[in-house]
Amino acid sequence: MNPPAARLETPVLIGRKRDGEELAPADLHALVEGYMAGEVAEEQMSAFLMAGVIRGFTDAEAVALTEALHASGDTVDLSSLRGPTVDKHSTGGVGDTTTLVVAPVLAAAGLQLAKLSGRGLGHTGGTLDKLEAIPGFRVALEPDEMREQVERIGLAVAAATAELVPADKRLYALRDVTGTVPSRALIAASVMSKKLAGGAEHVLLDVKTGDGAFMATREDAVGLAELCVRIGEAKDRRTAALVTDMSQPLSDGIGNAVEVAVAIEVLRGERPGRLETLCRELAAAALVLTGRAAPADAPAMVDELLDSGRALERFRDLVVAQGGDPGVVDAPREVLPAAPEIIDWRPGSGTVTAVRCRELGELAATLGAGRRRKEDDIDPAVGLELLVRIGDEVADGQPVARVHARTRADGERAVERLAALVTLGEGDVAGAPLVLERVGLPATGEVR
Amino acid sequence: MNPPAARLETPVLIGRKRDGEELAPADLHALVEGYMAGEVAEEQMSAFLMAGVIRGFTDAEAVALTEALHASGDTVDLSSLRGPTVDKHSTGGVGDTTTLVVAPVLAAAGLQLAKLSGRGLGHTGGTLDKLEAIPGFRVALEPDEMREQVERIGLAVAAATAELVPADKRLYALRDVTGTVPSRALIAASVMSKKLAGGAEHVLLDVKTGDGAFMATREDAVGLAELCVRIGEAKDRRTAALVTDMSQPLSDGIGNAVEVAVAIEVLRGERPGRLETLCRELAAAALVLTGRAAPADAPAMVDELLDSGRALERFRDLVVAQGGDPGVVDAPREVLPAAPEIIDWRPGSGTVTAVRCRELGELAATLGAGRRRKEDDIDPAVGLELLVRIGDEVADGQPVARVHARTRADGERAVERLAALVTLGEGDVAGAPLVLERVGLPATGEVR
Repeated sequence: MNPPAARLETPVLIGRKRDGEELAPADLHALVEGYMAGEVAEEQMSAFLMAGVIRGFTDAEAVALTEALHASGDTVDLSSLRGPTVDKHSTGGVGDTTTLVVAPVLAAAGLQLAKLSGRGLGHTGGTLDKLEAIPGFRVALEPDEMREQVERIGLAVAAATAELVPADKRLYALRDVTGTVPSRALIAASVMSKKLAGGAEHVLLDVKTGDGAFMATREDAVGLAELCVRIGEAKDRRTAALVTDMSQPLSDGIGNAVEVAVAIEVLRGERPGRLETLCRELAAAALVLTGRAAPADAPAMVDELLDSGRALERFRDLVVAQGGDPGVVDAPREVLPAAPEIIDWRPGSGTVTAVRCRELGELAATLGAGRRRKEDDIDPAVGLELLVRIGDEVADGQPVARVHARTRADGERAVERLAALVTLGEGDVAGAPLVLERVGLPATGEVR
Repeated sequence: MNPPAARLETPVLIGRKRDGEELAPADLHALVEGYMAGEVAEEQMSAFLMAGVIRGFTDAEAVALTEALHASGDTVDLSSLRGPTVDKHSTGGVGDTTTLVVAPVLAAAGLQLAKLSGRGLGHTGGTLDKLEAIPGFRVALEPDEMREQVERIGLAVAAATAELVPADKRLYALRDVTGTVPSRALIAASVMSKKLAGGAEHVLLDVKTGDGAFMATREDAVGLAELCVRIGEAKDRRTAALVTDMSQPLSDGIGNAVEVAVAIEVLRGERPGRLETLCRELAAAALVLTGRAAPADAPAMVDELLDSGRALERFRDLVVAQGGDPGVVDAPREVLPAAPEIIDWRPGSGTVTAVRCRELGELAATLGAGRRRKEDDIDPAVGLELLVRIGDEVADGQPVARVHARTRADGERAVERLAALVTLGEGDVAGAPLVLERVGLPATGEVR
């Protein structure tokens, strides 16, 4: 437990943060470096993190922490790309499949996206898990392979390697078991260090708020979005954020195959709804951020890219490039793995007055779509479809949700549970607006 | 880093303290038990401690933490003693040798003291190190041996075994490296858990404040004393505390042999000064606390015990019982190890206007009297004597301090350093009063 002599100052440093002092960038760099070198012990880092969670960090400290995490590993070199390069990141939620739609739209607009993604955990899904539902789809790309693919077709989606921001991985695991997750600066440093390591010149963030998100309040989400934008700009990345609603699921699909199917249906113009609307908003924002379109023109450009089928073709290019079955683009429900039992839930008539978003995500995970722990296996075929949103009128006999289950018993248990998660009642209710705030961006024209 | 399933609630518990909630006694017991069982990781405990240091603990939490630490190990069984049993504890300072004087006085008054002591660290000395300066003195006593000795002569001073409050030992080491030392409740729980384990019915605390103490401000010291007394009373121990000044060294001696010599000189009535005065105060307080004397009569009883030589004889009994050379009682300077080089510092004339107490302790440690780390060896012979106090007039040529060093060079370096630690100037200055506050005690009559 005694660190070697060279790090004897660690308790003093921790004490300064404990007493509410601002630490110098050099001190924060030394702390993270010492941690990665084994000179700062886990128990010292967790005490420091707790002090920071309670006392807070200044913007300068958040920037320094981001730099220190970023410096712990490699950076993807995108300098050979013609660009403009852009990265898009969501803080995570339920039915959050925007990458599968937005990335092809932006690639079709001539932007270049080398997107590093993660796995799902808890009530949220992960882009890699979703893409792997497509038979043959490979997410392990070598850096050279990824660059070549982006150069050729404008997009690639791959797993982050262990060499990318290793300090963030270790700190995240430590925070998870020590009650030190809820810190705006630590969350922002985690997000932005990965974006810096991702190498793109432009970064668009989708910060979720509401029951199904990690930021419970709108104020927290806006604060996080603003801090991330300040960090990005301080590190010379053009950064912007949308703060968006996660009080009800985004996609109609909650699961892996089912989310891919719905995303493809959006790209095909066959699935209007909240997911489609937010994808249009995010794509328009990225076109403005990268200077590809004026704010007033961006929505029309997005319409054209979707309506012309050019975005869908870029998605097909992505599937082909990464070894997936391209038939998925034309007939997603036939090519994607299907669950043996599909049960519709028809609870009768009324108005949808409430949806428990996080618990819907957890229910899908319980069916086998998600992980409780990192090492759990998932089943790509199972999940839920939510066919209504808050404020919708439901007629007697109309399906409100559809359960995709491994067994009849699983499916029936899920249907039983649904009654507690989607409330039918009476009266005039409305869900929260989808885009709550724009940070670092002018308003774009109205999206369709 | 992942605790087993049974302790998955640990991060939640930590989070509650992080958010400023009061934890239930059962939760705090479970936390400490889990820590000792290896189910709560070091990094979880340090995060919890940091949250508690910043957010604070309630009295009920401090009591529960004390109980939990106490429950981690054995309790010395003093039930076979006729009593009254009493324990005396100082929070530590420079030249703080009161145990060597107070314990024999109280034993001579018919009280029974089974005192468990510690080693010195940093700028403070430890009672065990001091007693071991007496040739032959043994501090490792078995519990039975200790009880038998207390029964026979009224006192014993021994090393605490590893079985006593092991959770406190582990927590202390953890706090030391994680910046989580400064918490009133954690300090009180550490002190009082050891007092509970020590088994005595009465507990007298000497809480030090000032530059040479761990509690920098009087307010902190009074707060700690009050909390310790509340914890003790909650656990059915009659507990009281004096808050006393440590802005200048207590004993004229700072070191090991030199502190023993001064303490014996006090017992012999040959060394008036701050140490003698505080020993009289503490002894009188213990006589009142245990019901041995009325407040008005206690000082006279202490006078009688010292003047009659009965306290000195109890000290002789202690030395004999624990294998030390009894000649030390009659001629301490001849029997105790002497440093090869003794240099008097005579800085000229003036008034002593300032003393840097902690640094005098550190200077003695540098000479070899103390430890920087637990595993360091100490030299019993070296140290300092401070022959003046704040407000004293010094005449030209009068020795102000005496250095006991291993080598001439060491001694000369120490003399050079002294000029920065003891300031001679002009004017009418006065040191702080010795007893600043009494907690849980009526005022006693004036001590001599």
